[in-house]
Amino acid sequence: MAKLTLGLDYGTNSVRGLVVDVATGEELATAVYNYPTGEAGLLLDPADPHLARQNPADYLSGFVAVCQELGNTADMSQVIGIGVDTTGSSPMPVAADNSALGSDPRFKDDLAAQVWLWKDHTSHEEAAEITRKAAEQGHPYLAKCGGTYSSEWYWSKLLHCLRVAPHVVEAAASWMEYCDWIPAQLCGITDPKQVRRSRCAAGHKAMFEEQWGGLPSAEFLATLDPRLASFRDNLYNEVHTSDEIAGHLTAAYAAQTGLPAGIPVAVGAFDAHFGAVASGAKPGVLVKIMGTSTCDCMVHPMDEPIADVPGMCGIVRGSVLPGFYGLEAGQSAVGDIFNWASRFTSMSHDDLTKEALLLKPGQSGLLVLDWHNGNRTVLVDPMLSGLVVGLTLHSKPAELYRACIEATAFGALKIVDRMEEYGVKVESVVCCGGIADKSPLTMQIYADVFNRPFHVAKSEQTCALGSAIFGAVAAGAYPDTLSAQAAMAGLKDVVYTPIAKNVETYRELYKLYLDLHDSFGIAGQAHDLAPVMKRLFAIREAVVG
Amino acid sequence: MAKLTLGLDYGTNSVRGLVVDVATGEELATAVYNYPTGEAGLLLDPADPHLARQNPADYLSGFVAVCQELGNTADMSQVIGIGVDTTGSSPMPVAADNSALGSDPRFKDDLAAQVWLWKDHTSHEEAAEITRKAAEQGHPYLAKCGGTYSSEWYWSKLLHCLRVAPHVVEAAASWMEYCDWIPAQLCGITDPKQVRRSRCAAGHKAMFEEQWGGLPSAEFLATLDPRLASFRDNLYNEVHTSDEIAGHLTAAYAAQTGLPAGIPVAVGAFDAHFGAVASGAKPGVLVKIMGTSTCDCMVHPMDEPIADVPGMCGIVRGSVLPGFYGLEAGQSAVGDIFNWASRFTSMSHDDLTKEALLLKPGQSGLLVLDWHNGNRTVLVDPMLSGLVVGLTLHSKPAELYRACIEATAFGALKIVDRMEEYGVKVESVVCCGGIADKSPLTMQIYADVFNRPFHVAKSEQTCALGSAIFGAVAAGAYPDTLSAQAAMAGLKDVVYTPIAKNVETYRELYKLYLDLHDSFGIAGQAHDLAPVMKRLFAIREAVVG
Repeated sequence: MAKLTLGLDYGTNSVRGLVVDVATGEELATAVYNYPTGEAGLLLDPADPHLARQNPADYLSGFVAVCQELGNTADMSQVIGIGVDTTGSSPMPVAADNSALGSDPRFKDDLAAQVWLWKDHTSHEEAAEITRKAAEQGHPYLAKCGGTYSSEWYWSKLLHCLRVAPHVVEAAASWMEYCDWIPAQLCGITDPKQVRRSRCAAGHKAMFEEQWGGLPSAEFLATLDPRLASFRDNLYNEVHTSDEIAGHLTAAYAAQTGLPAGIPVAVGAFDAHFGAVASGAKPGVLVKIMGTSTCDCMVHPMDEPIADVPGMCGIVRGSVLPGFYGLEAGQSAVGDIFNWASRFTSMSHDDLTKEALLLKPGQSGLLVLDWHNGNRTVLVDPMLSGLVVGLTLHSKPAELYRACIEATAFGALKIVDRMEEYGVKVESVVCCGGIADKSPLTMQIYADVFNRPFHVAKSEQTCALGSAIFGAVAAGAYPDTLSAQAAMAGLKDVVYTPIAKNVETYRELYKLYLDLHDSFGIAGQAHDLAPVMKRLFAIREAVVG
Repeated sequence: MAKLTLGLDYGTNSVRGLVVDVATGEELATAVYNYPTGEAGLLLDPADPHLARQNPADYLSGFVAVCQELGNTADMSQVIGIGVDTTGSSPMPVAADNSALGSDPRFKDDLAAQVWLWKDHTSHEEAAEITRKAAEQGHPYLAKCGGTYSSEWYWSKLLHCLRVAPHVVEAAASWMEYCDWIPAQLCGITDPKQVRRSRCAAGHKAMFEEQWGGLPSAEFLATLDPRLASFRDNLYNEVHTSDEIAGHLTAAYAAQTGLPAGIPVAVGAFDAHFGAVASGAKPGVLVKIMGTSTCDCMVHPMDEPIADVPGMCGIVRGSVLPGFYGLEAGQSAVGDIFNWASRFTSMSHDDLTKEALLLKPGQSGLLVLDWHNGNRTVLVDPMLSGLVVGLTLHSKPAELYRACIEATAFGALKIVDRMEEYGVKVESVVCCGGIADKSPLTMQIYADVFNRPFHVAKSEQTCALGSAIFGAVAAGAYPDTLSAQAAMAGLKDVVYTPIAKNVETYRELYKLYLDLHDSFGIAGQAHDLAPVMKRLFAIREAVVG
């Protein structure tokens, strides 16, 4: 009988469970549970659009519910290990018994005591303060996260909570990412100090790095708030990769789910990083998780030196694949821009795609800056916006649509250029996520813009598959993550190969894109833009003939 | 019984006749005749989208037809004078008896022998050659038309005809604007040398200026083509303003139309200039004829010195109002851009306008460059294109629509700034044309951007009314054009007055517009554009508050 592994992927609105054959990676059963609390799983504040919280109890009820549903199809008694990924940075206060403070009757209506979801931006002032003070005081803490601290991250949120709801921090025994809390709960760990913290979460979002002794120093934290410095003792000094075991499943959860009691649960991590593993991340391969926004993951051998790369959201030892540096970058809007173009022109994606497929590169005469939601990498600047140049009285919706796709490809190539400048070579690309599966138009444009082959991950739920892979490794079914990945992850047969004459045209357009990028994106970088419109006409003329 | 005057306005697709009370300017009857030849009056060549010709016979049949229709409402026997305006520069070859060469059976299927309509751009290479050679040889010929000769104008077309259809030029006794030819035909003038040429047409488009002895020298023309230099003798050495008489109506036309034989016909001119007169053009008042594109007219006292203004399409003695310098500028697309925005977003003007009216200045966060059809004034560059900056995932069609209107207002203000730099003061503005009559949204935005009151001409057919005014002057009903204008032209009651806080916001946005304008429009003028997106967010924040 086949041994099975269970992957759990906790998203923003739901949790997905996936049961996978340990030997082959075959996906045998899947189940989705929509969080019952709030609006589509989110606790919101009508008075503050930046607030986004979540009820931690939904995670545990979700675990039970998806296992019960999976049990209808798969034999849960054959599961040998469990992996868990979540969104992040999404920290939460916990009580002394490691229960969620937000589930305590005294705090259950207190939004500050719930899970602070990654997309909660209430702490944007604190983020700016952390960036400023770290720089002023000459600390290296931001070197691994591109130089700018974000309101999406751990310390901003904890500091904001200290300021607006100090009673919550006072009542908390610790703060942890829910990717750490869920495995600990499944394994009945009742002491926050005993919870094995994710290296991935800590390194990318809490500025944890051995080079400076783990978390930022108490001295630095005191300059933000003395209470933050004291609270540091409630946190952690070591971190773990996901090939390690967080604990073993309790008998109580086993009874509710049909899973065997005592099976190992892997240390948790963030979703995109597990998605990258299940897409075949390895040196030289860039993995792009493409959805409304994009997350770009690379690994780099630990024994080859790597410089700090300006603009990367993270360079963390062991964060994607244990034994490698994990690099993370991203674009703050990709599919969201295509959705905008569809809404803006009152045309469906299907109709726009059909017409855009008939256009040659450069034929639209349009060039777009893909900053409709700011620029995450490499400029790390949310206060940027989208731009379109080259419009004529004949410009059509499908031309804008195609130019938007091209622009996100140029933005993606800029990230690759930045990585390569710092010695991280990108030879080929694997994409996963909705766009990779559904838009051959986008994939071909990207291959042509990148002048590199584009592959698509076999799985359409790579994050959950990544969790299942780490469940198998934690269970000892494979000696290490790389061998598990080799057996269980794979690619679809389709490969998007660069077309030489398109590559040539896009090389020309990319030069113009960079002129706009630097002129609008970097202070004091004025380029002569007078040739831009004329070059766009000339390129159009050349390709239309 | 009231004395009447007849104004004829020859447009691109039709001719309009208007019968007006000489004493009051009251419009008593109007009639429109669509040219029967070609597609909507245009002779086109499927193989060449730049070609646009017209059948000269349509002008004469149109004259008779509109007069007959007007006779149903007005007593044509009371008409004392006729004025004629046309599009331009739209020259045509004429035979030795001053008949249209294109009506000669030998030439009637020859497109080169017909009227070369203003929008015919087949001669763009000749235009560039004229600009280059005039500059190289140090001639002053382009000083009065902004420094760049256009493919829309007289010499480009004549030179192109010489090159592609020399037999037409060889068979022609002369070339004349159809604004000269129609009055001559109505008056039975059978010798091209006797035709009184319009100062307006000659000065703005054929580089005629007393300062250099009339038309450009034979020496200069010989450097373009020796045949052009010889043909110069078939042209003219003097020009006339429209308060002068071109001739008197023939008995034959009188019989067909019910008009009295022998009534004077005024010297013709271009439509926009007559529209300006009927809108109340006088020193300090800018008249904007606003339609798909815009024509801007100013007058300046002849006894005050005026410098050559770079980028103006023309500064011509007596071209708008006899006794004044007439200045012409323009925007190559205005209503056309609004039409594009409507098509592009699949939304009606009405719906877009309704939503745009709810937006405050700056609230869209968008800034547009209105160059979708190039820039006529002040950059004189057709190889420019439209630009939109400030887009977010929330940007909506009505926001683009409003930003497009604002952009055309900024482009219009740049023209005014250029005039004022050179000493031509603009105190208030009168608009006429479709947009002025139909879009209070546009008028208020313009008033706020200009920080000047905006008036609207009383007549909704100002060009035809201008013709009627010159008909009255030619008939001697008034001692001069100014007194005829004072009696017969007027304004609507509505005045669009600048709103102080809108003025303030638009001043900020205009600064950003100028940064984009100069960066994209002028070689070597790189500005630091990194603050643009941030300023747009800040302005939006400030007005939404």
